[in-house]
Amino acid sequence: MSNDSVSHEQILTERYLEGPFPQVVRGNPTVDVLLAHRSVRRYIDRPVTDRELATMIAAAQSASSSSNLQLWSVVEVRDDEKKQRIAQLAGTDGAHLASAPVVLFFIADLARATQVFADVATGAVQVPEVGADLVAESSVRESQNLETTMVAFGDALIAAQNAAVAAESMGLGICYLGSIRNDVPAIAKELGLPEHSFAAVGMTVGHPNPERPTRIKTRLPIAAVWHKETYDLAGQREQVLKYEHAARAFYTGQGMAPSWIQRNFVRLFKSGAIGARTWMQLWLRNRGMGSK
Amino acid sequence: MSNDSVSHEQILTERYLEGPFPQVVRGNPTVDVLLAHRSVRRYIDRPVTDRELATMIAAAQSASSSSNLQLWSVVEVRDDEKKQRIAQLAGTDGAHLASAPVVLFFIADLARATQVFADVATGAVQVPEVGADLVAESSVRESQNLETTMVAFGDALIAAQNAAVAAESMGLGICYLGSIRNDVPAIAKELGLPEHSFAAVGMTVGHPNPERPTRIKTRLPIAAVWHKETYDLAGQREQVLKYEHAARAFYTGQGMAPSWIQRNFVRLFKSGAIGARTWMQLWLRNRGMGSK
Repeated sequence: MSNDSVSHEQILTERYLEGPFPQVVRGNPTVDVLLAHRSVRRYIDRPVTDRELATMIAAAQSASSSSNLQLWSVVEVRDDEKKQRIAQLAGTDGAHLASAPVVLFFIADLARATQVFADVATGAVQVPEVGADLVAESSVRESQNLETTMVAFGDALIAAQNAAVAAESMGLGICYLGSIRNDVPAIAKELGLPEHSFAAVGMTVGHPNPERPTRIKTRLPIAAVWHKETYDLAGQREQVLKYEHAARAFYTGQGMAPSWIQRNFVRLFKSGAIGARTWMQLWLRNRGMGSK
Repeated sequence: MSNDSVSHEQILTERYLEGPFPQVVRGNPTVDVLLAHRSVRRYIDRPVTDRELATMIAAAQSASSSSNLQLWSVVEVRDDEKKQRIAQLAGTDGAHLASAPVVLFFIADLARATQVFADVATGAVQVPEVGADLVAESSVRESQNLETTMVAFGDALIAAQNAAVAAESMGLGICYLGSIRNDVPAIAKELGLPEHSFAAVGMTVGHPNPERPTRIKTRLPIAAVWHKETYDLAGQREQVLKYEHAARAFYTGQGMAPSWIQRNFVRLFKSGAIGARTWMQLWLRNRGMGSK
């Protein structure tokens, strides 16, 4: 199931189901990798090499970082028992994690910066440009606000996406695990995360099992998400209903609940939709991450 | 300054300054695009075509989305006066935005889903799977929590990064504008954003001006961000100090303050570091986005 073996038309048909399709450039190998993304949840027993991981992580580091603060880290997990404990904590498919040779955890990381702060404040590290005045007007508390937490979260996700693209360009498959935020405190303990950090997202990595292929996930018409000059809310109604209709065939074929609108209700609006994740603000504060 | 004209060694040297460099794969055009990223702040007077934008946005839609909820949108701005007003609101370089033919704004978007909710709740839209019982146990308030806001923010950033990679693969340059969060309410007004949405990040797009090239930004040693099985905080001290030393030459050469550690103080820990962005939590709540 290499990218070369399927045509642009086939990929766009799987992605958008109905035309008119976006007029995309042809013959660009990077664009072909991006358009062909599909999440992989079953891997074959073939290792991910250190060179492949180094490539993914160097690609992640090459992504933009807000003010070059680099407020993220990644933890590579290969230990089978740890993977199973994490699957249980996240309430996710254990067989998916068991089949993945590597699970990466992208960390929203203010711990590295906070350690630097403490080292300079205590005089353990001397930096000519950070004098007593600057230390005196500085505090860890200043970094504990929602905006800075979101900068770190954003850095981690941009880095993760570059790692995902690099992986797929090498023939590897990936699947994001947002489910790890179902129990961030316990996941943090498993990963040995210090204060001022939390796991933003997980990602399984491996060679896709061709006997358990996943289809390209269908998306809203491009007109629903692409606005010119100003955002148009009312104009999205038609696109959303078109999608609700078209996506039924995809979801039914995947053995999933057929209605995308129902999915929105269940995940966003139904009582208890957010499940165990409502602790986010309180826990972040207790971790020395801000939400004010 | 195409990717082909510079060697892997040169790119890794600019990125990491000192060895040992990560052992990355060679001859992979997508990896080459990822590793060669640099932010561009001056563009030539050459348009970005609709095909290029369609490719970027289709790539963005092809990125993973949490539960396929697709909680993001993008607003394309070409109007010169609007770009200048936005530059002023963001407190950022007006000449940078003036030279960019297009500025994209990636929106953390619960407005589309909330409109669907309202349409179903009022009976304007009928969905067989969403019966009276499900409507009765559902409310917009349920979606107003920090976790859901972060899901939308994360969807928007993952999408943005795919758009960035697509752009660079086509020879375009990009620069993220996190600075738009300096005045999210005014930016939201400029973009006509409804309740339940905010601009997560901006991005200039255009053809790089070869007379105003930017260098690849240097990053921490890969060992600082890459952890095996558990996170190692103390072990980062040596890497950070190595970087603090090595990055001085880069920053000095760019006419910037030479100390990366000082930059951490000024951006994160100094009194008032977060500047105008402290309104985030309150404003989100008033916008119908959650922070609880």
